[in-house]
Amino acid sequence: MGSGDSPIRSPQDKEVPMSSKIHGLNIIPLRKIPDERGTIMHMLRADAPHFDKFGEVYFATAYPGVIKAWHLHTKQAQNYCCIQGMIKLVCYDDRADSPTKGVLQEIVMGDLNYVLVQIPPLLINGWKCIGTQTALLANCADMPHDPTEMKRIDPFDPAIPYDWALKHG
Amino acid sequence: MGSGDSPIRSPQDKEVPMSSKIHGLNIIPLRKIPDERGTIMHMLRADAPHFDKFGEVYFATAYPGVIKAWHLHTKQAQNYCCIQGMIKLVCYDDRADSPTKGVLQEIVMGDLNYVLVQIPPLLINGWKCIGTQTALLANCADMPHDPTEMKRIDPFDPAIPYDWALKHG
Repeated sequence: MGSGDSPIRSPQDKEVPMSSKIHGLNIIPLRKIPDERGTIMHMLRADAPHFDKFGEVYFATAYPGVIKAWHLHTKQAQNYCCIQGMIKLVCYDDRADSPTKGVLQEIVMGDLNYVLVQIPPLLINGWKCIGTQTALLANCADMPHDPTEMKRIDPFDPAIPYDWALKHG
Repeated sequence: MGSGDSPIRSPQDKEVPMSSKIHGLNIIPLRKIPDERGTIMHMLRADAPHFDKFGEVYFATAYPGVIKAWHLHTKQAQNYCCIQGMIKLVCYDDRADSPTKGVLQEIVMGDLNYVLVQIPPLLINGWKCIGTQTALLANCADMPHDPTEMKRIDPFDPAIPYDWALKHG
């Protein structure tokens, strides 16, 4: 891609999953390759070991402070990458048969932490645009959007033990 | 996706290829769905009639005035979508067996013209960031990046009858 991409390094270098608190949730560090013209930013290759299948790629923006939550997909897996600005992604494991049932995980991602997050079906998730800039999230989902397989839960539903409010400290 | 997306409309509504001056070059208008939280921006679905196969999705930015050209892929087809800012994409048909050999086409795309452009292999192409904002280009290519199938040609090579300079008028 970019001429700054050394041919000695494989594009997959360092792009291996990190450990996560929640079973089946993958966090993969991604490379950005900047030069004086601009930047190349990796997301997902069909030959990556963590690639499953392609369904749809689309983008979502959110203005600072906006919460887009909660989402629960019954079939679709998400591949999220915040390519501009910063978001706080929150995942809550309410899966009856999960070894990490009840665990909640926050992932602060975007310009300052450029990662791919793979969210399996049935994991409750949502995100909030943090900081001062509009956030731009790319999703490369494993099946095309189908409103019948998606459930929306109110972001302030008390059944989910999470408070979206800014925590000063 | 966005709650502003009426369930009566199919996500593919109006997302059908437009005519193009160059044989095999497809331009598909895309939908943006804005609301008070942000925007959903379509790009490519596996069930779209114009989808072929998935190889890699990555992003490229360019600062205002920067030219990224010329690129010639011998095997890979590109799916380009400018999701922020504006670019001028230029395609030059130098394919010996093409019915439109010798034709050059400029496509001004981005915030003000949100489209998907499908560039078949062997079509010479390049782009320039126009306007005042950094441009952000998404590419959903049909095979993973392989430097051996890509040829770079100097953006000012006289063999290609195109002048990248700003044309006042």
